[in-house]
Amino acid sequence: MTHKQLYQNILRKQSFLCVGLDTDIRKIPAHLLHEEDPVFAFNQAIIDATAPLCIAYKPNMAFYESRGIAGWTAFEKTVKYIRANYPDQFIIADAKRGDIGNTSAMYARTFFEELDVDAVTVAPYMGEDSVTPFLCYPDKWVILLALTSNKGSHDFQLTADAHGERLFEKVLRVSQNWAADDRMMYVVGATQGKAFEEIRRIAPGHFLLVPGIGAQGGSLEEVCRYGMNDECGLIVNSSRAILYADNGVHFADAARQAAQEVQQQMSGLLSCTIISNT
Amino acid sequence: MTHKQLYQNILRKQSFLCVGLDTDIRKIPAHLLHEEDPVFAFNQAIIDATAPLCIAYKPNMAFYESRGIAGWTAFEKTVKYIRANYPDQFIIADAKRGDIGNTSAMYARTFFEELDVDAVTVAPYMGEDSVTPFLCYPDKWVILLALTSNKGSHDFQLTADAHGERLFEKVLRVSQNWAADDRMMYVVGATQGKAFEEIRRIAPGHFLLVPGIGAQGGSLEEVCRYGMNDECGLIVNSSRAILYADNGVHFADAARQAAQEVQQQMSGLLSCTIISNT
Repeated sequence: MTHKQLYQNILRKQSFLCVGLDTDIRKIPAHLLHEEDPVFAFNQAIIDATAPLCIAYKPNMAFYESRGIAGWTAFEKTVKYIRANYPDQFIIADAKRGDIGNTSAMYARTFFEELDVDAVTVAPYMGEDSVTPFLCYPDKWVILLALTSNKGSHDFQLTADAHGERLFEKVLRVSQNWAADDRMMYVVGATQGKAFEEIRRIAPGHFLLVPGIGAQGGSLEEVCRYGMNDECGLIVNSSRAILYADNGVHFADAARQAAQEVQQQMSGLLSCTIISNT
Repeated sequence: MTHKQLYQNILRKQSFLCVGLDTDIRKIPAHLLHEEDPVFAFNQAIIDATAPLCIAYKPNMAFYESRGIAGWTAFEKTVKYIRANYPDQFIIADAKRGDIGNTSAMYARTFFEELDVDAVTVAPYMGEDSVTPFLCYPDKWVILLALTSNKGSHDFQLTADAHGERLFEKVLRVSQNWAADDRMMYVVGATQGKAFEEIRRIAPGHFLLVPGIGAQGGSLEEVCRYGMNDECGLIVNSSRAILYADNGVHFADAARQAAQEVQQQMSGLLSCTIISNT
């Protein structure tokens, strides 16, 4: 999917919501456990309920890997289901991979050739040759960790060098030599507040994938105030607040309701930006 | 496995070799492709041939994930095969994971509960709460990326802060607050030469997992000169040079031969250290 197509989807749906498919078999409604593949059955219902309200899905690989072969099967079926039924959805494998060149190339092959997702999250610690193998696929994306939503983001990401440039700023600056904003996005946690302003100075045109709304405490309004650009430039993720809005037989209705509340808020925030830009 | 057990295995076998199971179905001998599970058949033969000569195996997750369910099956069978037949081997899942706390906890559960490997490689970029969930399992290990073997290691890992401390040094120093050398090791590439001296000043007692010998150009002698401590303190990995020593029906013999050459060199290097320490 291209940058332009993504922005058009956002305008059409009045939403920049990504639904995080962090599907934990221990948390899904009990009645689904009788299904042949409970995790896939849950995902299918969540996707059908939320697809008109969001522009992306982000399966979190840890939740599938933790169940071994059964988990991988559910993951593959989920990706195929989205592709077949909702071809306008942007699919992000939240994998946080990154390794030496030949190994990153294997991961890229897995996610972009075998599975045909649109984007993979990648960790920057190992530098250029750990990231570039993911950049060889037309209209596929790397979403590089920049400033994450967790407490541990303070441990190394904020360390300033002798010129005062912090690690996340260096990651944003240096990685722009590897690909432009038609192939690269950045992860910036919703909990980082005003740091979005500084990030926009370094990466004005890039899409930012923003986790940390809801359970982790980030504010959607604040993210938009400091992080939105004139093509929206944000994909905001919500996982637990939507998936587990209700634990009974009406879980999918509750998920739709939760997604709709976020979408309506997003629609308002998009209008403000359009007005302020005209 | 404890630090002491690992050192005892090294002394007994006169080897600190780890065989990296980067098994690529496109590179294994053609006659194995008729097997029901070619990758597992290859691994089995490699393991049987090399087990007396090494103390660890390191399956590289990318090579298994790239084949989806078939790959995960081969990976699980490989781990079980080593556990059942060579219980003194230290099994490292080379996964380079690291995510927010609840997600890292899922990865830890996968590797330590479902699969029962001894260690997982973890990327430090996301800080403390992305690493500590892996540290809750007795006698299981985190192997944290410090200074990697690839060219991209120069991009961020060598960045010095205002006090001259480089990022990999900060990772070594700060992470020692999370666990001691009975639970944590570090990845240091064989290509880093004299940097091992500096690393030993910060982490004198830790085991270092050292990739980059062979295909990547690192020197075993140099690694030992600067990196060995009085309990060896090194686990040196070789993958391609052993796995693909020969591509015909005698591939396992060739792998044994290649492993034996490294083991004999290691035996000599261990003796030098023991002599120089007495």
